[in-house]
Amino acid sequence: MEHDGILVVISGFAGAGKGTIVKGLLKDYDNYALSVSMTTRQPRPGEVNGEAYFFVSREEFEKTIEEGGLIEHAQYVDNYYGTPKAYVEEKLKAGMDVILEIELQGALQIKKLYPEALLLFVTPPSAAILKQRLTDRGTETAEVIKRRMDRAAEESQMMDKYDHIIVNDKIEDCVAYTHSVIQSAHSAPARLKKLTDSLRRDLKEMSEQG
Amino acid sequence: MEHDGILVVISGFAGAGKGTIVKGLLKDYDNYALSVSMTTRQPRPGEVNGEAYFFVSREEFEKTIEEGGLIEHAQYVDNYYGTPKAYVEEKLKAGMDVILEIELQGALQIKKLYPEALLLFVTPPSAAILKQRLTDRGTETAEVIKRRMDRAAEESQMMDKYDHIIVNDKIEDCVAYTHSVIQSAHSAPARLKKLTDSLRRDLKEMSEQG
Repeated sequence: MEHDGILVVISGFAGAGKGTIVKGLLKDYDNYALSVSMTTRQPRPGEVNGEAYFFVSREEFEKTIEEGGLIEHAQYVDNYYGTPKAYVEEKLKAGMDVILEIELQGALQIKKLYPEALLLFVTPPSAAILKQRLTDRGTETAEVIKRRMDRAAEESQMMDKYDHIIVNDKIEDCVAYTHSVIQSAHSAPARLKKLTDSLRRDLKEMSEQG
Repeated sequence: MEHDGILVVISGFAGAGKGTIVKGLLKDYDNYALSVSMTTRQPRPGEVNGEAYFFVSREEFEKTIEEGGLIEHAQYVDNYYGTPKAYVEEKLKAGMDVILEIELQGALQIKKLYPEALLLFVTPPSAAILKQRLTDRGTETAEVIKRRMDRAAEESQMMDKYDHIIVNDKIEDCVAYTHSVIQSAHSAPARLKKLTDSLRRDLKEMSEQG
């Protein structure tokens, strides 16, 4: 492997299509690994342990926190959610780009711990289209839609903390564009230290030898 | 046009293939405009005014400096070289990405004036390959090659000031990769202010209207 992988954090408004982009990246390219979160919430019917989540007890979760085994964690309602560290670091070292779909607060926590993480924020092309998409689902009450739009208004204040804003207009284009953003990030100097260090050392040696 | 263009500054070691990459970008894609430098040096046989350079007198050049008509300028040996501002700004406003092939000192000057400029540094995969390429040209004396390698050693100290290090291994791959790096840069929040401002404003309005 020429380089370590990138920890790719994907956040965005509810209804922006984060999940579809993640699925598209995993299907269309072979350099991605998906980070699976750990949670104390009960599995819903049909949910398999290790797919969308690792389901653990409260005791196990708290032990993992104490052992430093999570990159980030948060509590929503009465349940814990967190990102296990071992899997992420193993895949990064193997040169895979690891995708993590996570809320804004968790994303900003991760950027502190992993300054080389790449933070992507997914949005529809406009606020009107966001509302339309939430309404078109037909599964949410007006109250839930209202709550999601309010939350989007809050989250939009923090968008600029992300490295890129991914506009999800046509999904195929968006998946390809997201892939190119991630691959481009590999050539930032901070992620190419091995190369730049060896260039500097070798050029200096050649120059001194005359 | 959805967005302003990006001022793309391309630097790199002599022999790294900057010129070939620039030609490839202009040939393969239609979103690029090439910035033509102004100089006081004499045209060489076959050089046409307005192609590689605008050839002007010393008086004209100094007048352009005084009028603030150059983005950056420098003096090498006894000649001035500079980048005319009007053409660059016109093309950026029209949504074109403007390419500027320029030395390291000029590149860093530009980044101060245009913080949203994208700085790309081109390098071969290794110092040994750089030397090989300079030698293979067969047109340079050992002394010239030595001078270029010494200069590369100096320039390598500043590589990290660039936004991306472009490794030129296979030229076709490198042109396509450089294009994807530039297109990815369009989604940095600082370059998407129109979109993020309107999203924030519209979401806030919708939220207040309930």
